[in-house]
Amino acid sequence: MELPRIIVNFKAYREATGERAIEIAKAAEDVWKETGVSIGVAPQAVDLRRVAEAVEIPVFAQHVDPYEPGARTGSVTPYAARDAGAYGTLLNHSERRLRIDQIEMALSLARRYGLKVVVCANDPIVGRAVSELGPDAVAVEPPELIGTGISVSKAKPEVVLRSVEVIEGIVYVGAGVSTGEDVRRSLELGAYGVLLASAVAKSEDPKSKLLELAEAVLTFE
Amino acid sequence: MELPRIIVNFKAYREATGERAIEIAKAAEDVWKETGVSIGVAPQAVDLRRVAEAVEIPVFAQHVDPYEPGARTGSVTPYAARDAGAYGTLLNHSERRLRIDQIEMALSLARRYGLKVVVCANDPIVGRAVSELGPDAVAVEPPELIGTGISVSKAKPEVVLRSVEVIEGIVYVGAGVSTGEDVRRSLELGAYGVLLASAVAKSEDPKSKLLELAEAVLTFE
Amino acid sequence: MELPRIIVNFKAYREATGERAIEIAKAAEDVWKETGVSIGVAPQAVDLRRVAEAVEIPVFAQHVDPYEPGARTGSVTPYAARDAGAYGTLLNHSERRLRIDQIEMALSLARRYGLKVVVCANDPIVGRAVSELGPDAVAVEPPELIGTGISVSKAKPEVVLRSVEVIEGIVYVGAGVSTGEDVRRSLELGAYGVLLASAVAKSEDPKSKLLELAEAVLTFE
Amino acid sequence: MELPRIIVNFKAYREATGERAIEIAKAAEDVWKETGVSIGVAPQAVDLRRVAEAVEIPVFAQHVDPYEPGARTGSVTPYAARDAGAYGTLLNHSERRLRIDQIEMALSLARRYGLKVVVCANDPIVGRAVSELGPDAVAVEPPELIGTGISVSKAKPEVVLRSVEVIEGIVYVGAGVSTGEDVRRSLELGAYGVLLASAVAKSEDPKSKLLELAEAVLTFE
Repeated sequence: MELPRIIVNFKAYREATGERAIEIAKAAEDVWKETGVSIGVAPQAVDLRRVAEAVEIPVFAQHVDPYEPGARTGSVTPYAARDAGAYGTLLNHSERRLRIDQIEMALSLARRYGLKVVVCANDPIVGRAVSELGPDAVAVEPPELIGTGISVSKAKPEVVLRSVEVIEGIVYVGAGVSTGEDVRRSLELGAYGVLLASAVAKSEDPKSKLLELAEAVLTFE
Repeated sequence: MELPRIIVNFKAYREATGERAIEIAKAAEDVWKETGVSIGVAPQAVDLRRVAEAVEIPVFAQHVDPYEPGARTGSVTPYAARDAGAYGTLLNHSERRLRIDQIEMALSLARRYGLKVVVCANDPIVGRAVSELGPDAVAVEPPELIGTGISVSKAKPEVVLRSVEVIEGIVYVGAGVSTGEDVRRSLELGAYGVLLASAVAKSEDPKSKLLELAEAVLTFE
Repeated sequence: MELPRIIVNFKAYREATGERAIEIAKAAEDVWKETGVSIGVAPQAVDLRRVAEAVEIPVFAQHVDPYEPGARTGSVTPYAARDAGAYGTLLNHSERRLRIDQIEMALSLARRYGLKVVVCANDPIVGRAVSELGPDAVAVEPPELIGTGISVSKAKPEVVLRSVEVIEGIVYVGAGVSTGEDVRRSLELGAYGVLLASAVAKSEDPKSKLLELAEAVLTFE
Repeated sequence: MELPRIIVNFKAYREATGERAIEIAKAAEDVWKETGVSIGVAPQAVDLRRVAEAVEIPVFAQHVDPYEPGARTGSVTPYAARDAGAYGTLLNHSERRLRIDQIEMALSLARRYGLKVVVCANDPIVGRAVSELGPDAVAVEPPELIGTGISVSKAKPEVVLRSVEVIEGIVYVGAGVSTGEDVRRSLELGAYGVLLASAVAKSEDPKSKLLELAEAVLTFE
């Protein structure tokens, strides 16, 4: 399974918890089946297994701790995420930053247990730095735009351009991505895909929103 | 449902992940049905929902973050733990310590969403301090004994006595608890119950081990 | 030396660094000599020794780490703070919160090296909790008022009253304290003293401001 | 002033606090004057200013926080470190790791205030990653050898070789460095210099030890 073009982070939104997590994931699966555009979802840890059982699209953990299984109360280990059916994991999201030695360790363990790893970064330079650790992809998200609805591709196209320029490998961009237009611009600027959250996860009609985003991917291709 | 006499923390043990988490939880349920001794289990976040669906005994989260639902990537909120079926949560375990203002906030939110809260502490004084925040119970576990198989009730009975003396309300003790004798001593010294992990979670025969522990509770009663 | 009625936290303010730290500390010493009202100062770690050498009033560290001397790169140990001439230390300030086991450890080590300890708390309940650890004083500061210039004694007098009621021992209050009137109210409501920062540390005339505050203490006495 | 060949980290050692910090720094200055080999020292925050005033060799902070001057109680800002006379700072030492976005921010602020920055890393890959952030130098120290007296250049020469190979710019190595032989090997393997601590900071005769190390540098040159 290749890395999806669109990854929807459910964060800890109430609107994307439990039954609702399943619904959004199924909407993503439907849109993938209808359009052929691959979409991944990143539900909360408590929903990870159920979502992974419910759909055939890539399911990501939002975070894994840099530990092997063991005496680690309260942690989500890469082993457990994999056991729960995860295809991959986000790491170092702006709401869950890690020390760089921990990113390296979590990444290494995630790989050991067969998880794809998308490491988040606050800017192109940090994105390049973490890309040296060998993740499957890097997602660059200017924290000041996260949750604003003002897309990085519109407000800071230079961030996308610079990210694509300095980071070897697959680059996602995110922060404020909420429309098909945002997706199209991001891909035009060279991004492989987009990472987004509230525009889908808090939508009253996630399927329509996802269709809009997926069609933008198609238009671009 | 009253607080159980025995709480089994599955930590992030490989032997207590996924299918195995269900098995241990079912063994605990069986022992409860056979002996009448209440037993709670604390599986990993990714197993919380499935375990809660599989058994009728109290299921605890190992940790919750001090946040309302929202933009909190990688967190386990009290709301989500409750949605997943948790009866309660541990907080401030030695492997997942929190700042005191965070304990207060997590406790307050856990209450809001109907979770019982057992706050862990490293010694009787800290136990008394956190008891002022109004948890449902306090669990005192000297960190130096955790995972040693040398029980707090044997190696440091004064810790149990002192905890029971200075903490108002329900007191669990833990660290190194692994036999019926450890349980019996803990209760004799005044503890309400015990918190333990590897002796059950890594056991090849969790049911027999749990029977041994439950019978010690019965003997005491 | 008894605990001062007024403690001025220099934070990391540019206006209270280096030479300027000495000036503010000397202003505080002058006011103490002129009025008899004891005033303590809490300069940054890099200024601690020089301030302690320059004045005869109580000098506090803003924070100490919960470690004995040793391989602790980047830490301020209680031992080193004492060696630098500190009379005491703040702990768990809202800008430098600690885990509760760390508060206990830092407090214990600070005592071992002869430092007075003022533990900060965000509300009366947490204040009471930390008071169980046996500090010399507790300072209750609602974080939402810190730096606002709106005094806790005016905006939330119930916080002061409740703190004094539930905490045994010496209680400071802080957050937004900036006038003699704020000081007077705080003491009237039962506080032993006040903790403040910008009103003095960023003042163009710290001595006048300190005189105003000290006179309010005198009026009250 | 160029980056020194030898940097002595005083950690929070009792034997390197206060008066003793001055003595070790003066010994380093003497050895520099006698041999021409540049030696830097990294005293604790509370000793930074006094050491910087006492000697003419490069003085490093052990850590700076990623903040501008302001309401940052308990922090050592780059501005304050510079005001105290620091020439540079270590960052991300194994005993004081930082999140990668914090390394970037601290580095950027340190530069703004004229500090040289040596970023520590646990292995060559992380070293390469942090080198992308543009520090003045990277120091690679395998944590498992720190404080052992078994030198990285002897026990893991491949770590030194690999670090020099993958990191562009100045590379220090450290962990277990304690003899002239260790220094010589490190430089032979391509390191620019060494970072060490206890061998000098806890020595009864720091000057002799520093002479031994400096002579090894000379032999190499």
